[in-house]
Amino acid sequence: MSHHLHLPSQAIIREVGLRDGLQSIARVLPTAQKIEWIRAAHAAGQREIEVGSFVPARLLPQLADTAELVAFAQTLPGLIVSVLVPNLKGAEKAIDSGADAMIVPLSASHAHSLANLRKTPDEVVAEVAHIRAARDAAGSKIVIEGGVGTAFGCTIQGEVAESEVLRLMLALLDAGADRVSLADTVGYADPAMVSRLFEKARALVGDRLWCGHFHDTRGLGLANVYAALQTGVNRFDACLAGIGGCPHAPGASGNVSSEDLAYMLRSMKIDTGIDIDALLALRKQVAGWLDGEALHGTLWQAGLPKTLNDAPLAA
Amino acid sequence: MSHHLHLPSQAIIREVGLRDGLQSIARVLPTAQKIEWIRAAHAAGQREIEVGSFVPARLLPQLADTAELVAFAQTLPGLIVSVLVPNLKGAEKAIDSGADAMIVPLSASHAHSLANLRKTPDEVVAEVAHIRAARDAAGSKIVIEGGVGTAFGCTIQGEVAESEVLRLMLALLDAGADRVSLADTVGYADPAMVSRLFEKARALVGDRLWCGHFHDTRGLGLANVYAALQTGVNRFDACLAGIGGCPHAPGASGNVSSEDLAYMLRSMKIDTGIDIDALLALRKQVAGWLDGEALHGTLWQAGLPKTLNDAPLAA
Repeated sequence: MSHHLHLPSQAIIREVGLRDGLQSIARVLPTAQKIEWIRAAHAAGQREIEVGSFVPARLLPQLADTAELVAFAQTLPGLIVSVLVPNLKGAEKAIDSGADAMIVPLSASHAHSLANLRKTPDEVVAEVAHIRAARDAAGSKIVIEGGVGTAFGCTIQGEVAESEVLRLMLALLDAGADRVSLADTVGYADPAMVSRLFEKARALVGDRLWCGHFHDTRGLGLANVYAALQTGVNRFDACLAGIGGCPHAPGASGNVSSEDLAYMLRSMKIDTGIDIDALLALRKQVAGWLDGEALHGTLWQAGLPKTLNDAPLAA
Repeated sequence: MSHHLHLPSQAIIREVGLRDGLQSIARVLPTAQKIEWIRAAHAAGQREIEVGSFVPARLLPQLADTAELVAFAQTLPGLIVSVLVPNLKGAEKAIDSGADAMIVPLSASHAHSLANLRKTPDEVVAEVAHIRAARDAAGSKIVIEGGVGTAFGCTIQGEVAESEVLRLMLALLDAGADRVSLADTVGYADPAMVSRLFEKARALVGDRLWCGHFHDTRGLGLANVYAALQTGVNRFDACLAGIGGCPHAPGASGNVSSEDLAYMLRSMKIDTGIDIDALLALRKQVAGWLDGEALHGTLWQAGLPKTLNDAPLAA
C-alpha cells in the first residue's frame, strides 16, 4: 500500500516564532527588528504569521507591541495575520487590531489549564462563547481558532485522555470557534499518537481541524508532522530556528523549525510557496539578533541537498 | 484509514556508533572504553552491535582493534556482532574473527562509489560473489549483508535513480548476499522517498530487505524511520548520541541517535528490548569520553515523558 500517495499537494507553514518563540525568550526584541522579520518572512513566501499575543504587557513584555505588529503586517499583500488571545479582554483587542484570526488556547489537561490559564478547560470553552458573541456584535470577520493544547499529555498531569481532547475540541466549535487546532505543547506526541488522534479529529470535524502544532522537545517534531500530513491535515505551526521551548524542560527545543519543515515539505513536493534560501537568510539575520539564545534546526548547517532544485514542483 | 495499525510490534536498533560514528571522529577511543561501551549497550538491552570495520589500520586507525572487539562481544549472551568489510580481504578477516554478520557497502551512486570505494557498483557486486565463495569455502555461517548506500541521492553525483538502487539490491542478492539494507548515506531522503523505495524493495525481496540506515543530516532521520516502519521494515541502524557525520557536510549530524530512536519506538509501543534510562546513562559516559566532539540527539536534554512508564508493553 502506498502511503505517500495520500499526501496533500500543498501545505501552509504558519510562522509562530514571533509569538510562541519570543515569549519563551527573556530578551525583548525591538519592534523594528520584529517588523523586519515579518517583512522578510513575507518576502520569503510565508503567508500566515502569528505576530504576537494580546496578553497584559506586565506578563509578557516581549509581546507588548502586538497591535503595532498587526498594523504593519496588514500592509503586506496576501498575508494572513493572526494573534493569540487568552480571554475576552484579549479578544476585544484582537478585534480592534484588525487581525485576520485569533487563536484561543485551551489546555486539555485540567492541571495544566489551572496552572497556566487559571481556568478549567470548560471555563475556557465558556469564554470562547463570550468571544464569539463579542466578535459577532462588533460585526468583525476575525476568525476564531480554538487551540487545544497538551493534546498528547502534560508534564503536570501526565496522561490526557483522547476522549477528553476530542470532547473539548467539539465543545470549542459548539461554543462558536470557527476552527480548531491540536497542539503537542510539551513534546509528548509520537507519530502513532498523532495518526490516531488526527484521524479521529478529522473524522469528527473535517477541515475545521485546521492546524497541527508540534514541539520538537524530544526530536519527533517532523515525524509527527509527517504522520499528521498522512491524515490530510496540511497546516502546521513552526518557529524560525526552532526558537522557544518549555519552562518544564530546560534546554529543550521549541516548535519544529520553519526552515527544516519547509525543506521536508519541499523535498516531498508539497508546495508551501516558501523560498527556502530566503528563509535561511532570514534565519541568519534573526540568529544575529538573538545571539546567545538557544537556537535549533539542522538544515542551516548542512544546506539544501544538491538534488532539491532539480525537482520543480508541478503547477 | 489507520496507518498506525500497520506498524510492527517489535523492532531492532543495530548500534553502529562504534563503526559509523567513531570512524568520523579523528580521535581514537581506547579499546578498553569501546569494550565498556559494548558491555553497557548489551546490558541496556541492545542485541545487535556493529563493533568495527576490517579496513587497513592506516586508513582508519580508529577501528584498528575490530578483531579484539568482536572477540569480546562474542562473550556476551545473545548479542549479534557485525562488522563492516570493504572487500574480500576484509571479509576473510571477518570470517576469521567469528563475527555473526558482515556488511559489505555498495554505493548506488557511481560517482560516490568511485570516489569512496575506488570501484564501480558492479565491481562491488562481483566482489560480493567472491566473498560468498570464500564464506562457503570456509564453512563459515557468517551472514553477508549488502548495504546499498547513497540510495536517495549523493553529494557528488546528485540524483540516484530508484531503478538503479533496486537493480543493485537485486544484483547483490544474486551474487550471494544473504540480505540487503538501504542507506541514506548523505541525508537526502525524505519520508515520501523512503516510503516509495522501501515499498518497492520489500515487494521485490521481502524480508531480505533487512535494515534501514538513515542519517539525520537535515533533521528528517526519525521521520524517515517512521516512513520505513510503515512499509514493514523494523531494523534500523543508529548511533548513540548521533555521533558521526559526513565529510561533505561539516557540522552536520550523523546517524539517527539510538536513544531518540529507542524513545520513539517505545512511545509507539514497539518493543526494542532496550532500557532507555540505561542507554541514556551510557550516552553520558560516552559523551565524557568524546568530550569536545559534536554530539546530537534531543532526549538526553528533555528526559522521558512522564507518561511513558505508565504504558507497559504487551508481552
